[in-house]
Amino acid sequence: MSALVSHLVQCVPNFSEGRDPEVIAAIVDAVRQTPGVRLADWSADRDHNRLVVTFVGPPDAACAAALASAAAATQRIDLRTHSGVHPRLGALDVLPFVPLSGITLAECAALAQSVGTALADRFALPVFFYEAASPDNHSLPFVRKSAFQSLLPDCGPDAPHPTAGATVVGAREPLIAYNVNLAASDLSFARTIAREMRVLPHLPGVRALGLRLPSRGLTQVSMNLTRPAATPLFAVFHYIQRRAQELGTSVIESEIIGALPGPAAFGILADALQATTLKPGQVLLENWLG
Amino acid sequence: MSALVSHLVQCVPNFSEGRDPEVIAAIVDAVRQTPGVRLADWSADRDHNRLVVTFVGPPDAACAAALASAAAATQRIDLRTHSGVHPRLGALDVLPFVPLSGITLAECAALAQSVGTALADRFALPVFFYEAASPDNHSLPFVRKSAFQSLLPDCGPDAPHPTAGATVVGAREPLIAYNVNLAASDLSFARTIAREMRVLPHLPGVRALGLRLPSRGLTQVSMNLTRPAATPLFAVFHYIQRRAQELGTSVIESEIIGALPGPAAFGILADALQATTLKPGQVLLENWLG
Repeated sequence: MSALVSHLVQCVPNFSEGRDPEVIAAIVDAVRQTPGVRLADWSADRDHNRLVVTFVGPPDAACAAALASAAAATQRIDLRTHSGVHPRLGALDVLPFVPLSGITLAECAALAQSVGTALADRFALPVFFYEAASPDNHSLPFVRKSAFQSLLPDCGPDAPHPTAGATVVGAREPLIAYNVNLAASDLSFARTIAREMRVLPHLPGVRALGLRLPSRGLTQVSMNLTRPAATPLFAVFHYIQRRAQELGTSVIESEIIGALPGPAAFGILADALQATTLKPGQVLLENWLG
Repeated sequence: MSALVSHLVQCVPNFSEGRDPEVIAAIVDAVRQTPGVRLADWSADRDHNRLVVTFVGPPDAACAAALASAAAATQRIDLRTHSGVHPRLGALDVLPFVPLSGITLAECAALAQSVGTALADRFALPVFFYEAASPDNHSLPFVRKSAFQSLLPDCGPDAPHPTAGATVVGAREPLIAYNVNLAASDLSFARTIAREMRVLPHLPGVRALGLRLPSRGLTQVSMNLTRPAATPLFAVFHYIQRRAQELGTSVIESEIIGALPGPAAFGILADALQATTLKPGQVLLENWLG
Protein backbone atom coordinates (compact mmCIF):
# COMPACT_ATOMS: atom_id res chain seq x y z
CA MET A 1 0.00 0.00 0.00
CA SER A 2 2.65 2.50 1.03
CA ALA A 3 5.79 1.11 -0.61
CA LEU A 4 8.38 1.66 2.13
CA VAL A 5 11.88 2.16 0.77
CA SER A 6 14.17 0.02 2.86
CA HIS A 7 17.48 1.92 2.59
CA LEU A 8 17.02 5.28 4.21
CA VAL A 9 19.41 7.91 5.45
CA GLN A 10 18.63 10.95 7.57
CA CYS A 11 20.48 14.18 6.90
CA VAL A 12 20.64 17.20 9.23
CA PRO A 13 22.50 20.08 7.56
CA ASN A 14 23.14 23.24 9.60
CA PHE A 15 23.37 26.54 7.71
CA SER A 16 24.71 29.90 8.92
CA GLU A 17 21.54 31.90 8.23
CA GLY A 18 18.62 32.15 10.63
CA ARG A 19 17.21 35.59 9.80
CA ASP A 20 16.74 36.31 6.08
CA PRO A 21 13.46 34.62 5.07
CA GLU A 22 14.38 34.54 1.37
CA VAL A 23 17.64 32.72 1.98
CA ILE A 24 15.95 30.33 4.42
CA ALA A 25 13.18 29.62 1.90
CA ALA A 26 15.68 29.03 -0.92
CA ILE A 27 17.60 26.46 1.14
CA VAL A 28 14.49 24.68 2.46
CA ASP A 29 12.92 24.65 -1.01
CA ALA A 30 16.08 23.09 -2.48
CA VAL A 31 15.51 20.13 -0.16
CA ARG A 32 11.73 20.05 -0.59
CA GLN A 33 12.02 20.01 -4.38
CA THR A 34 14.49 17.13 -4.55
CA PRO A 35 12.56 14.06 -5.77
CA GLY A 36 12.47 11.12 -3.36
CA VAL A 37 13.28 13.14 -0.25
CA ARG A 38 10.91 13.98 2.62
CA LEU A 39 11.50 17.24 4.48
CA ALA A 40 10.84 16.26 8.12
CA ASP A 41 11.55 19.57 9.84
CA TRP A 42 13.36 22.89 9.62
CA SER A 43 13.91 25.52 12.25
CA ALA A 44 15.64 28.89 12.04
CA ASP A 45 16.95 30.71 15.10
CA ARG A 46 17.47 34.49 15.04
CA ASP A 47 19.87 34.64 17.99
CA HIS A 48 22.02 31.85 16.69
CA ASN A 49 21.51 33.09 13.10
CA ARG A 50 21.32 29.46 12.11
CA LEU A 51 19.04 27.14 10.14
CA VAL A 52 18.76 23.41 10.85
CA VAL A 53 17.03 21.25 8.23
CA THR A 54 16.11 17.58 8.71
CA PHE A 55 15.27 15.36 5.79
CA VAL A 56 15.04 11.66 4.99
CA GLY A 57 15.46 9.64 1.83
CA PRO A 58 17.26 6.86 -0.01
CA PRO A 59 21.03 7.45 -0.27
CA ASP A 60 21.09 8.88 -3.82
CA ALA A 61 18.19 11.25 -3.21
CA ALA A 62 19.59 12.37 0.15
CA CYS A 63 22.96 13.18 -1.42
CA ALA A 64 21.24 15.11 -4.21
CA ALA A 65 19.23 17.12 -1.66
CA ALA A 66 22.35 17.84 0.39
CA LEU A 67 24.19 19.15 -2.69
CA ALA A 68 21.17 21.20 -3.83
CA SER A 69 20.87 22.83 -0.40
CA ALA A 70 24.65 23.47 -0.38
CA ALA A 71 24.37 25.21 -3.75
CA ALA A 72 21.51 27.40 -2.47
CA ALA A 73 23.46 28.31 0.66
CA THR A 74 26.80 28.91 -1.05
CA GLN A 75 25.20 31.25 -3.60
CA ARG A 76 23.36 33.33 -0.99
CA ILE A 77 25.29 33.39 2.30
CA ASP A 78 28.29 35.69 2.66
CA LEU A 79 30.09 34.95 5.91
CA ARG A 80 31.87 38.36 5.72
CA THR A 81 28.56 39.99 6.66
CA HIS A 82 27.44 37.29 9.12
CA SER A 83 26.92 37.71 12.85
CA GLY A 84 25.48 35.33 15.40
CA VAL A 85 26.25 33.69 18.70
CA HIS A 86 26.83 30.18 17.28
CA PRO A 87 30.40 29.18 16.36
CA ARG A 88 30.60 28.52 12.62
CA LEU A 89 33.04 27.53 9.93
CA GLY A 90 30.91 27.90 6.81
CA ALA A 91 27.68 28.83 5.03
CA LEU A 92 26.82 25.13 5.02
CA ASP A 93 28.42 24.65 8.40
CA VAL A 94 27.86 20.99 9.31
CA LEU A 95 26.40 18.15 7.27
CA PRO A 96 25.81 14.88 9.17
CA PHE A 97 24.54 11.66 7.58
CA VAL A 98 22.69 9.38 9.99
CA PRO A 99 21.63 5.75 9.39
CA LEU A 100 17.83 5.50 9.56
CA SER A 101 16.91 2.05 8.23
CA GLY A 102 18.55 -0.65 6.13
CA ILE A 103 21.88 1.18 6.13
CA THR A 104 25.01 1.03 8.32
CA LEU A 105 27.04 3.80 9.87
CA ALA A 106 29.95 2.77 7.60
CA GLU A 107 27.73 3.19 4.53
CA CYS A 108 26.71 6.64 5.78
CA ALA A 109 30.41 7.48 6.22
CA ALA A 110 31.02 6.53 2.58
CA LEU A 111 28.11 8.78 1.53
CA ALA A 112 29.52 11.64 3.59
CA GLN A 113 32.93 11.27 1.95
CA SER A 114 31.40 11.17 -1.51
CA VAL A 115 29.27 14.28 -0.88
CA GLY A 116 32.23 16.03 0.77
CA THR A 117 34.38 15.40 -2.31
CA ALA A 118 31.59 16.72 -4.54
CA LEU A 119 31.26 19.87 -2.39
CA ALA A 120 35.00 20.52 -2.73
CA ASP A 121 34.95 19.95 -6.50
CA ARG A 122 31.79 21.88 -7.37
CA PHE A 123 32.04 24.85 -5.02
CA ALA A 124 35.82 25.05 -4.32
CA LEU A 125 34.97 24.52 -0.65
CA PRO A 126 37.46 23.17 1.89
CA VAL A 127 35.82 20.12 3.50
CA PHE A 128 36.68 18.50 6.84
CA PHE A 129 35.33 15.07 7.76
CA TYR A 130 34.21 14.21 11.28
CA GLU A 131 33.16 11.22 13.39
CA ALA A 132 32.63 8.06 11.32
CA ALA A 133 33.55 9.86 8.06
CA SER A 134 36.91 11.04 9.45
CA PRO A 135 39.88 8.69 8.90
CA ASP A 136 41.08 9.75 12.37
CA ASN A 137 37.58 9.83 13.92
CA HIS A 138 37.86 13.56 14.65
CA SER A 139 35.07 15.00 16.74
CA LEU A 140 33.10 18.03 15.57
CA PRO A 141 34.44 20.26 18.42
CA PHE A 142 38.00 19.20 17.55
CA VAL A 143 37.50 20.14 13.88
CA ARG A 144 35.98 23.52 14.82
CA LYS A 145 38.91 24.30 17.10
CA SER A 146 41.70 23.08 14.83
CA ALA A 147 40.48 23.90 11.29
CA PHE A 148 43.09 25.79 9.24
CA GLN A 149 45.35 25.83 12.32
CA SER A 150 46.73 22.43 13.21
CA LEU A 151 44.25 20.74 10.84
CA LEU A 152 44.11 20.99 7.04
CA PRO A 153 40.95 20.09 5.08
CA ASP A 154 40.40 16.48 3.99
CA CYS A 155 39.55 17.73 0.50
CA GLY A 156 39.30 21.00 -1.37
CA PRO A 157 41.52 24.11 -1.04
CA ASP A 158 43.71 24.72 2.00
CA ALA A 159 42.16 28.11 2.81
CA PRO A 160 38.53 29.12 3.53
CA HIS A 161 36.26 30.00 0.62
CA PRO A 162 35.99 33.83 0.66
CA THR A 163 32.23 33.95 1.21
CA ALA A 164 31.21 30.36 2.14
CA GLY A 165 34.04 29.40 4.52
CA ALA A 166 34.41 25.65 4.97
CA THR A 167 32.10 22.69 5.61
CA VAL A 168 32.31 19.82 8.09
CA VAL A 169 30.76 16.63 6.72
CA GLY A 170 30.31 13.50 8.77
CA ALA A 171 28.40 10.39 9.68
CA ARG A 172 27.10 9.69 13.17
CA GLU A 173 24.59 7.57 15.03
CA PRO A 174 21.10 9.07 15.53
CA LEU A 175 20.56 11.37 18.47
CA ILE A 176 17.52 13.21 19.78
CA ALA A 177 17.75 16.89 20.65
CA TYR A 178 15.29 17.33 23.51
CA ASN A 179 14.59 20.33 25.76
CA VAL A 180 12.38 20.55 28.86
CA ASN A 181 11.40 24.06 29.94
CA LEU A 182 10.93 24.89 33.62
CA ALA A 183 8.75 27.63 35.12
CA ALA A 184 11.62 28.80 37.34
CA SER A 185 13.65 31.82 36.23
CA ASP A 186 16.37 30.78 38.72
CA LEU A 187 18.92 28.76 36.74
CA SER A 188 19.91 26.56 39.68
CA PHE A 189 16.97 24.15 39.24
CA ALA A 190 17.76 23.42 35.58
CA ARG A 191 21.47 23.09 36.40
CA THR A 192 20.80 20.68 39.26
CA ILE A 193 18.56 18.49 37.12
CA ALA A 194 20.97 18.61 34.16
CA ARG A 195 23.83 17.49 36.42
CA GLU A 196 21.72 14.55 37.65
CA MET A 197 20.65 13.58 34.09
CA ARG A 198 24.27 13.16 33.03
CA VAL A 199 24.91 10.31 35.49
CA LEU A 200 21.64 8.36 35.82
CA PRO A 201 22.50 4.69 35.25
CA HIS A 202 19.02 3.80 33.93
CA LEU A 203 19.06 6.70 31.42
CA PRO A 204 22.45 6.39 29.70
CA GLY A 205 23.92 8.68 27.05
CA VAL A 206 22.21 11.90 28.13
CA ARG A 207 24.23 15.09 27.53
CA ALA A 208 22.49 17.84 29.50
CA LEU A 209 22.94 21.54 30.24
CA GLY A 210 20.92 24.05 32.26
CA LEU A 211 20.21 27.18 30.20
CA ARG A 212 18.31 30.45 30.58
CA LEU A 213 15.57 31.42 28.12
CA PRO A 214 15.76 35.15 28.88
CA SER A 215 13.09 36.27 26.41
CA ARG A 216 10.51 34.09 28.21
CA GLY A 217 11.77 34.30 31.80
CA LEU A 218 12.12 30.49 31.89
CA THR A 219 14.96 28.05 32.28
CA GLN A 220 15.64 24.92 30.29
CA VAL A 221 17.19 21.49 30.67
CA SER A 222 18.70 21.21 27.18
CA MET A 223 19.68 17.67 26.17
CA ASN A 224 21.09 15.46 23.49
CA LEU A 225 20.02 11.85 23.91
CA THR A 226 22.94 10.07 22.27
CA ARG A 227 21.63 6.54 22.84
CA PRO A 228 17.96 6.82 21.88
CA ALA A 229 17.52 3.05 21.72
CA ALA A 230 18.73 2.67 25.34
CA THR A 231 17.13 5.77 26.87
CA PRO A 232 13.32 5.92 26.91
CA LEU A 233 12.42 9.53 26.24
CA PHE A 234 9.24 9.41 28.31
CA ALA A 235 11.31 8.30 31.31
CA VAL A 236 13.59 11.32 30.75
CA PHE A 237 10.57 13.63 30.70
CA HIS A 238 9.00 11.96 33.72
CA TYR A 239 12.23 12.14 35.76
CA ILE A 240 12.53 15.87 35.08
CA GLN A 241 8.86 16.46 35.82
CA ARG A 242 9.15 14.68 39.17
CA ARG A 243 12.43 16.37 40.16
CA ALA A 244 11.10 19.80 39.18
CA GLN A 245 8.16 19.28 41.54
CA GLU A 246 10.42 18.06 44.34
CA LEU A 247 12.62 21.13 43.92
CA GLY A 248 9.60 23.46 44.03
CA THR A 249 9.16 24.37 40.37
CA SER A 250 7.33 22.73 37.45
CA VAL A 251 7.62 21.73 33.81
CA ILE A 252 5.99 24.20 31.41
CA GLU A 253 6.51 22.18 28.23
CA SER A 254 9.06 20.12 26.36
CA GLU A 255 10.29 20.30 22.78
CA ILE A 256 11.87 17.95 20.31
CA ILE A 257 14.25 19.73 17.93
CA GLY A 258 14.41 18.13 14.49
CA ALA A 259 13.38 14.54 14.09
CA LEU A 260 12.05 11.94 16.49
CA PRO A 261 12.97 8.40 15.32
CA GLY A 262 9.97 6.10 14.86
CA PRO A 263 10.97 3.54 17.51
CA ALA A 264 11.51 6.33 20.07
CA ALA A 265 8.07 7.77 19.25
CA PHE A 266 6.41 4.38 19.62
CA GLY A 267 8.25 3.87 22.92
CA ILE A 268 6.90 7.17 24.27
CA LEU A 269 3.34 6.11 23.32
CA ALA A 270 3.63 2.73 25.00
CA ASP A 271 5.41 4.05 28.11
CA ALA A 272 3.09 7.01 28.62
CA LEU A 273 0.02 4.74 28.59
CA GLN A 274 1.72 1.80 30.34
CA ALA A 275 0.48 -0.06 27.24
CA THR A 276 2.66 -3.15 27.54
CA THR A 277 0.89 -5.12 24.82
CA LEU A 278 0.70 -2.33 22.20
CA LYS A 279 2.30 -3.26 18.88
CA PRO A 280 3.64 -0.74 16.33
CA GLY A 281 1.30 -2.12 13.64
CA GLN A 282 -1.78 -1.13 15.66
CA VAL A 283 -1.05 2.54 15.04
CA LEU A 284 -2.69 3.66 11.80
CA LEU A 285 0.21 5.55 10.25
CA GLU A 286 -1.95 5.83 7.12
CA ASN A 287 -3.79 8.82 8.61
CA TRP A 288 -1.00 10.13 10.89
CA LEU A 289 -1.15 13.48 9.09
CA GLY A 290 -4.97 13.60 9.51
CA MET B 1 8.97 8.15 -1.06
CA SER B 2 6.18 6.18 0.52
CA ALA B 3 3.33 6.69 -1.93
CA LEU B 4 0.42 7.25 0.44
CA VAL B 5 -2.89 6.15 -0.99
CA SER B 6 -5.38 8.88 -0.27
CA HIS B 7 -8.66 6.93 -0.12
CA LEU B 8 -8.47 4.50 2.76
CA VAL B 9 -11.07 2.53 4.63
CA GLN B 10 -10.62 0.62 7.88
CA CYS B 11 -12.45 -2.67 8.34
CA VAL B 12 -12.96 -4.50 11.66
CA PRO B 13 -14.69 -7.86 11.06
CA ASN B 14 -15.63 -9.94 14.12
CA PHE B 15 -15.70 -13.74 13.71
CA SER B 16 -17.25 -16.36 16.02
CA GLU B 17 -14.06 -18.38 16.55
CA GLY B 18 -11.44 -17.56 19.17
CA ARG B 19 -10.04 -21.02 19.98
CA ASP B 20 -9.15 -23.14 16.94
CA PRO B 21 -5.72 -21.92 15.74
CA GLU B 22 -6.20 -23.34 12.23
CA VAL B 23 -9.48 -21.53 11.68
CA ILE B 24 -8.04 -18.32 13.12
CA ALA B 25 -4.96 -18.61 10.88
CA ALA B 26 -7.08 -19.25 7.79
CA ILE B 27 -9.17 -16.14 8.39
CA VAL B 28 -6.21 -13.90 9.25
CA ASP B 29 -4.24 -15.20 6.25
CA ALA B 30 -7.15 -14.47 3.93
CA VAL B 31 -6.81 -10.81 4.92
CA ARG B 32 -3.01 -10.79 4.92
CA GLN B 33 -2.83 -12.28 1.44
CA THR B 34 -5.19 -9.79 -0.16
CA PRO B 35 -3.05 -7.42 -2.25
CA GLY B 36 -3.18 -3.76 -1.24
CA VAL B 37 -4.42 -4.38 2.30
CA ARG B 38 -2.43 -3.92 5.52
CA LEU B 39 -3.32 -6.18 8.46
CA ALA B 40 -3.08 -3.81 11.44
CA ASP B 41 -4.08 -6.18 14.24
CA TRP B 42 -5.91 -9.33 15.15
CA SER B 43 -6.85 -10.72 18.53
CA ALA B 44 -8.59 -13.93 19.50
CA ASP B 45 -10.31 -14.39 22.86
CA ARG B 46 -10.90 -17.88 24.25
CA ASP B 47 -13.62 -16.89 26.73
CA HIS B 48 -15.57 -14.93 24.15
CA ASN B 49 -14.65 -17.50 21.46
CA ARG B 50 -14.26 -14.59 19.13
CA LEU B 51 -11.70 -13.18 16.67
CA VAL B 52 -11.44 -9.47 15.84
CA VAL B 53 -9.36 -8.50 12.80
CA THR B 54 -8.41 -4.93 11.87
CA PHE B 55 -7.18 -4.03 8.42
CA VAL B 56 -6.75 -0.97 6.25
CA GLY B 57 -6.75 -0.40 2.51
CA PRO B 58 -8.25 1.36 -0.49
CA PRO B 59 -11.97 0.59 -0.93
CA ASP B 60 -11.64 -2.12 -3.60
CA ALA B 61 -8.89 -3.98 -1.74
CA ALA B 62 -10.70 -3.68 1.59
CA CYS B 63 -13.89 -5.14 0.08
CA ALA B 64 -11.88 -7.99 -1.46
CA ALA B 65 -10.25 -8.76 1.90
CA ALA B 66 -13.61 -8.67 3.68
CA LEU B 67 -15.09 -11.15 1.18
CA ALA B 68 -12.01 -13.41 1.34
CA SER B 69 -12.17 -13.52 5.15
CA ALA B 70 -15.92 -14.19 4.98
CA ALA B 71 -15.28 -17.14 2.66
CA ALA B 72 -12.65 -18.57 5.03
CA ALA B 73 -14.98 -18.19 8.02
CA THR B 74 -18.10 -19.52 6.32
CA GLN B 75 -16.25 -22.65 5.14
CA ARG B 76 -14.80 -23.43 8.57
CA ILE B 77 -17.10 -22.22 11.32
CA ASP B 78 -20.17 -24.26 12.23
CA LEU B 79 -22.35 -22.33 14.66
CA ARG B 80 -24.16 -25.56 15.63
CA THR B 81 -21.01 -26.58 17.55
CA HIS B 82 -20.16 -23.11 18.83
CA SER B 83 -20.09 -21.99 22.44
CA GLY B 84 -18.91 -18.73 23.96
CA VAL B 85 -20.04 -15.90 26.21
CA HIS B 86 -20.37 -13.31 23.45
CA PRO B 87 -23.77 -12.85 21.79
CA ARG B 88 -23.51 -13.76 18.10
CA LEU B 89 -25.58 -14.01 14.98
CA GLY B 90 -23.10 -15.54 12.58
CA ALA B 91 -19.69 -17.03 11.71
CA LEU B 92 -18.76 -13.61 10.30
CA ASP B 93 -20.74 -11.86 12.98
CA VAL B 94 -20.22 -8.13 12.39
CA LEU B 95 -18.47 -6.30 9.56
CA PRO B 96 -18.04 -2.54 10.05
CA PHE B 97 -16.51 -0.20 7.47
CA VAL B 98 -14.90 2.91 8.96
CA PRO B 99 -13.69 6.01 7.08
CA LEU B 100 -9.94 6.43 7.61
CA SER B 101 -8.78 9.09 5.14
CA GLY B 102 -10.09 10.66 1.95
CA ILE B 103 -13.43 8.90 2.28
CA THR B 104 -16.78 9.82 3.82
CA LEU B 105 -19.06 7.84 6.09
CA ALA B 106 -21.64 7.82 3.28
CA GLU B 107 -19.09 6.26 0.91
CA CYS B 108 -18.32 3.62 3.56
CA ALA B 109 -22.05 2.94 3.86
CA ALA B 110 -22.21 2.33 0.10
CA LEU B 111 -19.24 -0.08 0.39
CA ALA B 112 -20.96 -1.91 3.23
CA GLN B 113 -24.15 -2.31 1.18
CA SER B 114 -22.22 -3.56 -1.81
CA VAL B 115 -20.24 -6.11 0.26
CA GLY B 116 -23.43 -7.13 2.11
CA THR B 117 -25.17 -7.84 -1.18
CA ALA B 118 -22.17 -9.89 -2.36
CA LEU B 119 -22.17 -11.90 0.91
CA ALA B 120 -25.85 -12.72 0.42
CA ASP B 121 -25.33 -13.71 -3.22
CA ARG B 122 -22.15 -15.75 -2.85
CA PHE B 123 -22.75 -17.54 0.44
CA ALA B 124 -26.56 -17.53 0.71
CA LEU B 125 -26.16 -15.55 3.93
CA PRO B 126 -28.89 -13.37 5.39
CA VAL B 127 -27.41 -9.87 5.83
CA PHE B 128 -28.62 -7.07 8.09
CA PHE B 129 -27.32 -3.53 7.71
CA TYR B 130 -26.60 -1.29 10.70
CA GLU B 131 -25.75 2.32 11.54
CA ALA B 132 -24.89 4.39 8.45
CA ALA B 133 -25.45 1.41 6.10
CA SER B 134 -28.97 0.81 7.44
CA PRO B 135 -31.80 2.64 5.64
CA ASP B 136 -33.43 3.04 9.07
CA ASN B 137 -30.14 3.68 10.94
CA HIS B 138 -30.62 0.55 13.06
CA SER B 139 -28.14 0.15 15.88
CA LEU B 140 -26.12 -3.04 16.27
CA PRO B 141 -27.82 -3.97 19.59
CA PHE B 142 -31.22 -3.45 17.94
CA VAL B 143 -30.32 -5.77 15.05
CA ARG B 144 -28.99 -8.42 17.44
CA LYS B 145 -32.19 -8.31 19.50
CA SER B 146 -34.65 -8.19 16.60
CA ALA B 147 -33.03 -10.33 13.87
CA PHE B 148 -35.43 -12.96 12.46
CA GLN B 149 -38.03 -11.82 15.00
CA SER B 150 -39.44 -8.38 14.28
CA LEU B 151 -36.67 -7.72 11.73
CA LEU B 152 -36.08 -9.47 8.41
CA PRO B 153 -32.68 -9.35 6.62
CA ASP B 154 -31.94 -6.47 4.24
CA CYS B 155 -30.68 -9.00 1.71
CA GLY B 156 -30.28 -12.78 1.34
CA PRO B 157 -32.60 -15.50 2.63
CA ASP B 158 -35.15 -14.89 5.37
CA ALA B 159 -33.78 -17.65 7.66
CA PRO B 160 -30.29 -18.18 9.16
CA HIS B 161 -27.71 -20.09 7.12
CA PRO B 162 -27.52 -23.58 8.74
CA THR B 163 -23.84 -23.36 9.73
CA ALA B 164 -22.88 -19.70 9.25
CA GLY B 165 -25.94 -17.92 10.68
CA ALA B 166 -26.29 -14.31 9.56
CA THR B 167 -24.02 -11.29 9.22
CA VAL B 168 -24.47 -7.67 10.29
CA VAL B 169 -22.70 -5.24 7.95
CA GLY B 170 -22.41 -1.54 8.60
CA ALA B 171 -20.56 1.72 8.40
CA ARG B 172 -19.69 3.78 11.43
CA GLU B 173 -17.36 6.54 12.60
CA PRO B 174 -14.00 5.45 14.05
CA LEU B 175 -13.87 4.54 17.72
CA ILE B 176 -11.05 3.44 20.00
CA ALA B 177 -11.50 0.41 22.24
CA TYR B 178 -9.41 1.19 25.32
CA ASN B 179 -9.07 -0.64 28.65
CA VAL B 180 -7.26 0.45 31.80
CA ASN B 181 -6.49 -2.32 34.30
CA LEU B 182 -6.50 -1.61 38.04
CA ALA B 183 -4.58 -3.46 40.75
CA ALA B 184 -7.73 -3.73 42.88
CA SER B 185 -9.68 -6.99 42.84
CA ASP B 186 -12.65 -5.12 44.36
CA LEU B 187 -14.89 -4.11 41.44
CA SER B 188 -16.17 -0.96 43.14
CA PHE B 189 -13.14 1.15 42.12
CA ALA B 190 -13.47 0.34 38.41
CA ARG B 191 -17.23 0.88 38.58
CA THR B 192 -16.86 4.25 40.30
CA ILE B 193 -14.33 5.47 37.76
CA ALA B 194 -16.37 4.12 34.81
CA ARG B 195 -19.44 5.98 36.09
CA GLU B 196 -17.43 9.20 36.28
CA MET B 197 -15.92 8.71 32.81
CA ARG B 198 -19.38 8.58 31.23
CA VAL B 199 -20.22 12.16 32.24
CA LEU B 200 -16.98 14.17 32.16
CA PRO B 201 -17.66 17.27 30.08
CA HIS B 202 -14.02 17.66 28.95
CA LEU B 203 -13.84 14.00 27.81
CA PRO B 204 -16.99 13.50 25.72
CA GLY B 205 -18.16 10.32 24.04
CA VAL B 206 -16.71 7.84 26.52
CA ARG B 207 -18.71 4.63 26.99
CA ALA B 208 -17.29 2.92 30.08
CA LEU B 209 -17.92 -0.19 32.18
CA GLY B 210 -16.24 -1.63 35.26
CA LEU B 211 -15.35 -5.32 34.73
CA ARG B 212 -13.59 -8.10 36.60
CA LEU B 213 -10.58 -9.92 35.08
CA PRO B 214 -10.94 -13.04 37.23
CA SER B 215 -8.01 -14.98 35.74
CA ARG B 216 -5.64 -12.20 36.82
CA GLY B 217 -7.34 -10.99 40.01
CA LEU B 218 -7.59 -7.47 38.54
CA THR B 219 -10.42 -5.14 37.59
CA GLN B 220 -10.79 -3.09 34.44
CA VAL B 221 -12.25 0.18 33.24
CA SER B 222 -13.35 -0.98 29.78
CA MET B 223 -14.11 1.83 27.34
CA ASN B 224 -15.13 2.77 23.86
CA LEU B 225 -14.01 6.28 22.92
CA THR B 226 -16.67 7.17 20.37
CA ARG B 227 -15.34 10.66 19.63
CA PRO B 228 -11.59 10.12 19.32
CA ALA B 229 -11.04 13.53 17.72
CA ALA B 230 -12.66 15.28 20.71
CA THR B 231 -11.35 13.08 23.53
CA PRO B 232 -7.58 13.06 24.09
CA LEU B 233 -6.70 9.50 25.03
CA PHE B 234 -3.78 10.51 27.24
CA ALA B 235 -6.17 12.66 29.29
CA VAL B 236 -8.45 9.62 29.70
CA PHE B 237 -5.49 7.55 30.94
CA HIS B 238 -4.27 10.34 33.22
CA TYR B 239 -7.72 10.90 34.76
CA ILE B 240 -8.04 7.20 35.58
CA GLN B 241 -4.49 7.06 36.93
CA ARG B 242 -5.14 10.01 39.25
CA ARG B 243 -8.56 8.77 40.41
CA ALA B 244 -7.21 5.28 41.05
CA GLN B 245 -4.56 6.78 43.33
CA GLU B 246 -7.11 8.95 45.12
CA LEU B 247 -9.32 5.91 45.71
CA GLY B 248 -6.40 3.90 47.09
CA THR B 249 -5.55 1.61 44.18
CA SER B 250 -3.33 2.00 41.10
CA VAL B 251 -3.15 1.46 37.34
CA ILE B 252 -1.30 -1.71 36.34
CA GLU B 253 -1.38 -1.15 32.57
CA SER B 254 -3.62 -0.07 29.76
CA GLU B 255 -4.43 -1.68 26.43
CA ILE B 256 -5.63 -0.54 23.05
CA ILE B 257 -7.76 -3.17 21.32
CA GLY B 258 -7.46 -3.08 17.56
CA ALA B 259 -6.29 0.06 15.86
CA LEU B 260 -5.20 3.45 17.16
CA PRO B 261 -5.88 6.19 14.59
CA GLY B 262 -2.79 8.20 13.61
CA PRO B 263 -4.05 11.56 14.88
CA ALA B 264 -4.95 10.01 18.25
CA ALA B 265 -1.48 8.45 18.50
CA PHE B 266 0.21 11.76 17.69
CA GLY B 267 -2.00 13.50 20.26
CA ILE B 268 -0.90 11.04 22.97
CA LEU B 269 2.76 11.71 22.13
CA ALA B 270 2.36 15.47 22.26
CA ASP B 271 0.18 15.45 25.40
CA ALA B 272 2.35 12.99 27.33
CA LEU B 273 5.45 15.15 26.77
CA GLN B 274 3.62 18.51 26.98
CA ALA B 275 5.27 19.02 23.58
CA THR B 276 3.16 21.92 22.37
CA THR B 277 5.29 22.67 19.31
CA LEU B 278 5.73 19.09 18.06
CA LYS B 279 4.56 18.57 14.47
CA PRO B 280 3.50 15.21 12.99
CA GLY B 281 6.16 15.49 10.27
CA GLN B 282 8.96 15.45 12.88
CA VAL B 283 8.22 11.81 13.69
CA LEU B 284 10.21 9.53 11.38
CA LEU B 285 7.47 7.11 10.38
CA GLU B 286 9.99 5.66 7.89
CA ASN B 287 11.55 3.57 10.67
CA TRP B 288 8.47 3.20 12.92
CA LEU B 289 8.77 -0.58 12.66
CA GLY B 290 12.50 -0.42 13.52
